[in-house]
Amino acid sequence: MTAFTQLPEPPYYVVIFSSRRTEGDHGYGDMAQRMVELAADQPGFLGVESTRSADGFGITNSYWATQEAITAWRKHAEHQMAIERGQAQWYEHYEVRIALVERAYSKK
Amino acid sequence: MTAFTQLPEPPYYVVIFSSRRTEGDHGYGDMAQRMVELAADQPGFLGVESTRSADGFGITNSYWATQEAITAWRKHAEHQMAIERGQAQWYEHYEVRIALVERAYSKK
Repeated sequence: MTAFTQLPEPPYYVVIFSSRRTEGDHGYGDMAQRMVELAADQPGFLGVESTRSADGFGITNSYWATQEAITAWRKHAEHQMAIERGQAQWYEHYEVRIALVERAYSKK
Repeated sequence: MTAFTQLPEPPYYVVIFSSRRTEGDHGYGDMAQRMVELAADQPGFLGVESTRSADGFGITNSYWATQEAITAWRKHAEHQMAIERGQAQWYEHYEVRIALVERAYSKK
């Protein structure tokens, strides 16, 4: 998961998910991997980049073709269950920001 | 640096900086801290969230009031020097994406 993703030319959307984990795994690792695999199968999914430092603070930026694709993924039944368990058990806190990517460039 | 930032209501801009570090520090830690302090003094700076996993892959999302503020920061002389050294020495690779944040919400 800690790697660059290949994206098309903008415009496209990003869901920025910043989070601090609670202590212990409690099934989080398996679910996080399952959610990445499931998201990758959804219409309009473009890619994901995710990283977390040793102190438990992480950022996951997932990229989507349209707002409709983001809404559909948010309503996906299995994802809904993960969201609920995330709120109850896995995350001390999280912030979500949804943004329209207008420009992109890479290291030369 | 690995903590949540407080942001106003959208809209505002985000600069998404995904990077993989080279091996060794080579003055990177000091410069990274200096750049966060300097950015925080720039007009239009709203906040920053940053994290890096043990394998060297990191994401820094910095938040800005306007595109003009992002452009001015990119042209800042001391930041320019850091960008050049980053290209030459500190980063194996990086990707930059600039996006307009339209919606935001938090863990309930």
